[in-house]
Amino acid sequence: MIRAAIVGATGYTGAELVRLLSRHPEVKLVGLTSQQYAGQPYESVFHHFADQVDLHCSPQHIEEIVADADVLFLAVPHGLSVPWVVESLRQGKKVIDLGADFRFRRADVYEKWYSTHHDAPELLVEAVYGLPELKREAVAKARVVANPGCYPTASVLSVAPILGKGIINERRLIIDAKSGVSGAGRKLNTPSLYAEANENINAYNVGKHRHIPEIEQEIAERAGLQADQMAISFTPHLTPMTRGILATVYADIQAGVKITTDELRQMYQEFYAGEFFVHVMKEGVWPHTKWSYGSNHAFIGVTVEERTGRIIVSTAIDNLVKGASGQAIQNMNILFGLPEKTAIEAPGMFP
Amino acid sequence: MIRAAIVGATGYTGAELVRLLSRHPEVKLVGLTSQQYAGQPYESVFHHFADQVDLHCSPQHIEEIVADADVLFLAVPHGLSVPWVVESLRQGKKVIDLGADFRFRRADVYEKWYSTHHDAPELLVEAVYGLPELKREAVAKARVVANPGCYPTASVLSVAPILGKGIINERRLIIDAKSGVSGAGRKLNTPSLYAEANENINAYNVGKHRHIPEIEQEIAERAGLQADQMAISFTPHLTPMTRGILATVYADIQAGVKITTDELRQMYQEFYAGEFFVHVMKEGVWPHTKWSYGSNHAFIGVTVEERTGRIIVSTAIDNLVKGASGQAIQNMNILFGLPEKTAIEAPGMFP
Amino acid sequence: MIRAAIVGATGYTGAELVRLLSRHPEVKLVGLTSQQYAGQPYESVFHHFADQVDLHCSPQHIEEIVADADVLFLAVPHGLSVPWVVESLRQGKKVIDLGADFRFRRADVYEKWYSTHHDAPELLVEAVYGLPELKREAVAKARVVANPGCYPTASVLSVAPILGKGIINERRLIIDAKSGVSGAGRKLNTPSLYAEANENINAYNVGKHRHIPEIEQEIAERAGLQADQMAISFTPHLTPMTRGILATVYADIQAGVKITTDELRQMYQEFYAGEFFVHVMKEGVWPHTKWSYGSNHAFIGVTVEERTGRIIVSTAIDNLVKGASGQAIQNMNILFGLPEKTAIEAPGMFP
Amino acid sequence: MIRAAIVGATGYTGAELVRLLSRHPEVKLVGLTSQQYAGQPYESVFHHFADQVDLHCSPQHIEEIVADADVLFLAVPHGLSVPWVVESLRQGKKVIDLGADFRFRRADVYEKWYSTHHDAPELLVEAVYGLPELKREAVAKARVVANPGCYPTASVLSVAPILGKGIINERRLIIDAKSGVSGAGRKLNTPSLYAEANENINAYNVGKHRHIPEIEQEIAERAGLQADQMAISFTPHLTPMTRGILATVYADIQAGVKITTDELRQMYQEFYAGEFFVHVMKEGVWPHTKWSYGSNHAFIGVTVEERTGRIIVSTAIDNLVKGASGQAIQNMNILFGLPEKTAIEAPGMFP
Repeated sequence: MIRAAIVGATGYTGAELVRLLSRHPEVKLVGLTSQQYAGQPYESVFHHFADQVDLHCSPQHIEEIVADADVLFLAVPHGLSVPWVVESLRQGKKVIDLGADFRFRRADVYEKWYSTHHDAPELLVEAVYGLPELKREAVAKARVVANPGCYPTASVLSVAPILGKGIINERRLIIDAKSGVSGAGRKLNTPSLYAEANENINAYNVGKHRHIPEIEQEIAERAGLQADQMAISFTPHLTPMTRGILATVYADIQAGVKITTDELRQMYQEFYAGEFFVHVMKEGVWPHTKWSYGSNHAFIGVTVEERTGRIIVSTAIDNLVKGASGQAIQNMNILFGLPEKTAIEAPGMFP
Repeated sequence: MIRAAIVGATGYTGAELVRLLSRHPEVKLVGLTSQQYAGQPYESVFHHFADQVDLHCSPQHIEEIVADADVLFLAVPHGLSVPWVVESLRQGKKVIDLGADFRFRRADVYEKWYSTHHDAPELLVEAVYGLPELKREAVAKARVVANPGCYPTASVLSVAPILGKGIINERRLIIDAKSGVSGAGRKLNTPSLYAEANENINAYNVGKHRHIPEIEQEIAERAGLQADQMAISFTPHLTPMTRGILATVYADIQAGVKITTDELRQMYQEFYAGEFFVHVMKEGVWPHTKWSYGSNHAFIGVTVEERTGRIIVSTAIDNLVKGASGQAIQNMNILFGLPEKTAIEAPGMFP
Repeated sequence: MIRAAIVGATGYTGAELVRLLSRHPEVKLVGLTSQQYAGQPYESVFHHFADQVDLHCSPQHIEEIVADADVLFLAVPHGLSVPWVVESLRQGKKVIDLGADFRFRRADVYEKWYSTHHDAPELLVEAVYGLPELKREAVAKARVVANPGCYPTASVLSVAPILGKGIINERRLIIDAKSGVSGAGRKLNTPSLYAEANENINAYNVGKHRHIPEIEQEIAERAGLQADQMAISFTPHLTPMTRGILATVYADIQAGVKITTDELRQMYQEFYAGEFFVHVMKEGVWPHTKWSYGSNHAFIGVTVEERTGRIIVSTAIDNLVKGASGQAIQNMNILFGLPEKTAIEAPGMFP
Repeated sequence: MIRAAIVGATGYTGAELVRLLSRHPEVKLVGLTSQQYAGQPYESVFHHFADQVDLHCSPQHIEEIVADADVLFLAVPHGLSVPWVVESLRQGKKVIDLGADFRFRRADVYEKWYSTHHDAPELLVEAVYGLPELKREAVAKARVVANPGCYPTASVLSVAPILGKGIINERRLIIDAKSGVSGAGRKLNTPSLYAEANENINAYNVGKHRHIPEIEQEIAERAGLQADQMAISFTPHLTPMTRGILATVYADIQAGVKITTDELRQMYQEFYAGEFFVHVMKEGVWPHTKWSYGSNHAFIGVTVEERTGRIIVSTAIDNLVKGASGQAIQNMNILFGLPEKTAIEAPGMFP
């Protein structure tokens, strides 16, 4: 059995890790840390685990917790991962960081967008950006996996099949994304109140969201460009639903390129052939976030809009699963040589 | 492998059976019937199964479908089950009816409340009312399981531990129940439209809901009363959520009985000790339907209201799982001697 | 023009007062106090008033604010009203308290249920419980109006027509109530988060809600009983909607009383004849909270359940309007001799 | 008093017209037609009008209904307006069509996108596209007003201040729009069911929505372009809320143009100065659809994204009010020389 600890287990991504790992046949949960609830039974924080998860929240004693575990899931706010990663490497443990601290190749980009200092830039080279459909082999050999952000997961999956092929102008993509409210986490703030978020949609952090440089980095890499050549517009919207991200992407087709919707779809189908978790939809079928509800599955719809010379792609995932905890487990399965879909294969919950 | 067919597979309970059975290690889905979608790929009706369920909807050829299966799940409107049950018995197959046709001991009660004729009253004696926590042994030997209604499941679990003990006046219970909109099924009617159901709660079928006689029958049986002695008020409410039932039950404590909340809770805990799916909550913790979301788990909160001399119980389930498809699979597991929680053990999805 | 000040203007009931009063033809808003936002433009707290409300939030300088106004609306947490009421009386101003401090005839009941001390019990005799449909004349002469709680408004309207007539056992009513999340106000707490409240319903404060003694007091008074003879069960439920309260009431018909649903409905229609804001529904029509959305209207459905010997009533209001701010303006209109429906006559918003 | 008839009064836009007109001081409702509910009391179709609207639904006898009214509001599906417009012109009555039949200057465009034949192309020249903020003077003199579509209203208001000024490339705008479910009307179809639409967002009709040519026509006109030069991408999304449209617009700044966010905002503020219903938000404030809930107000946020050389605009309206019925009344007020905001001036309902 793989011994797993979750650092920051009482946020939504932490709870989602517990939900999925509690049914994983090869995993034993050995630690659930929480600053706020240390000492309390985990099931008293999240009653849906009543009689099912028999662990208490523990304080964050790094050395002991790392010692007890074979793998650590870090579900803490950005800026707090470095000591855990350092200790995990020292003790030879695997670590999967669900936060942003190890997602960037360049510390200066991280520091600029996150308005903070990176305490261990030398370790960035160690981390693998864990989007398994694109970097499966690298993940398998990693010691540190930087689990992608929710928006970047949906965004990068949306265009990966057509990057670097001269089909679209990758530099000037427009990504209009919609996220459920759980993306803001369990912390208390007024916009996350039911009475504020319900019956409402709004853009936020326009031109300033911290997932912008992450999206640009990954798309640039696959397109054969430098990150600082990118000029992607990414606009997130707070949407009145608990879970789900829908990314609708607009790409200008390069002058002189001829491509039909059928040809485009075929490229996507070939690219994602054999991928258990990625589903390219048929003509006229556009993904619903609800199809991915509670699951690790992603749904992609594509079209060539001939009237405008654009490609439009729309991708649906569950922000807490494929966009966070499910993908982290997918990475863990790869790290430990298990079948990649173990414990996360279930279809979405509909309705 | 158990070969299972779902009759009426394109409603919500049908889809939920597919979701759960598609991951059942001992079950192979062999038939998914649908009048409306016969001939179409099942995944084109429910896209969340894209690339995951490789069956077409089939027309309802009773003889063939029964022949192909070891067990039949009937998820059709009431009044349509008899021919399937007759044929299943003839061919020696197990059948689990999620509808009302075989829930009543007395055909006249069914006929009165459902305003219809029962075509095979002689078979009612054959059927076991499949609430496993209360009738596990009978289910194990059954050929026909009448899967309980969603409201009755929540209602009967709410009071089962204190029936027939002289503690409460079972005859005059009041059950105020709240159900998500999926309880109305996938058929088109104006009150089920988003714009009508959202931001709204209302009582409906007050004093007339068809689950009243089912609730009275089961409570009377356990209380040692005749069904026609019962005078239970049951009021369902349409609640703006997709899934979930909450039943809040009011029972007058019999004159002369002394009982504290602690004693009451202990009775519940003892009654449900060892039940994997039933969770009695601690003092001051009242069940949330969200805790049961997508799961077969039930949560029960109890209190003695000393000021009024009443016991108040509130029970949360997922109407489509413990209230329908999950419980049907629980019954199937019992019928076939499998561990009862196989394929339905997952905790609820929160948030 | 009546000069009105709102004390505590940046909560939900405060904002609702501003919404409604900003269109009142006889009212000029002269003060909007807020501890949290003092000094900020009101429209920067609530952007839906952009370019429409030209006032800043002011600190709570009691003497000045009372001096500037003809009428004060107090929308502050319980326990904070007394100094405002004292000063208003001193300066001869009218005051309408939307909180609980002046709703009780007996300070000890208030002190017990609210776990606090009442600083001016001698003023309780001054206050009129402002449910206009029942106490219009008293309100007209009042200096201090105690605006009823949201749950008590729905509960008392539900049974007022049949109290004190020997028809029902008023002592042992059961009231099962469902409220939208805005009832918890704009303060930050975890159960009010969208991701917690959405797709969920739960009972809370069972047997302990502070509206219980208020409901018992008002029903006892009209039934000719003492408050301490009452044993009403009142169970509130947090419901996944922003606005709305539905109270479903169960009353045992007294032995020997014969009454039909038609007779019952007629009693209600006669009792509420001429009431602009109260609507008794026809046979088989049960109120939806959505019908009252944003309006001061109440909808009441009634039936005699012959099978059980009970009367069941279900009443829908908007908790922020008829349950708070709208009713406060209704009271103000009465206080100042204006047509009672001024500024609050609009029908509900549907869908 | 202006005598008003609503043709197609039992859809959502019809009900919204009744809600707003029932409080209009200068209007008397004289006719509410409905094919489905002819002969029934209007308040039995929409119970929120109980005791408040005292009219029956009438069959669609064109000649009589036009004769009785001074102004007709047509809230019928496209393709059905021509006979009403013809008769209104014959009898010299004003007519406001909320559907698409009279929105296009060119019948061939209408016929292509709506896959139908236009029965009176010669009358198109008669109709004024009734977006009052842009065409107030023309509306004032019109006999036939074509009320804009909901998406076009939000889209055109979003960019009107910067069209034809050489600032942006108007030809290649991208408009990503999100609409509440009421936009699909009250007709029964599966995607509008609560259990399908809740907790879900999806794109639909990508590249094919009928509002595309309407948006292109109006933007082209103001930009000094021909409609067939336009290549606007417009993607609508079904969003889990009852009301509201948010249009997020992406425009490439022309090469060589220098503009800051402050300068941009000032252009918007000057353009909309004096417009009661349009609100340009301050730096960093992005419109919420909830601010416009139930109101005729529009909220616009703008920014210059210097990193990409784009302007991003996000506009929120209520699809049933400014996007339909409220704007229709705004047009009526102009047609009859009344203050433009009469009966529709109320702020949005929040929360």
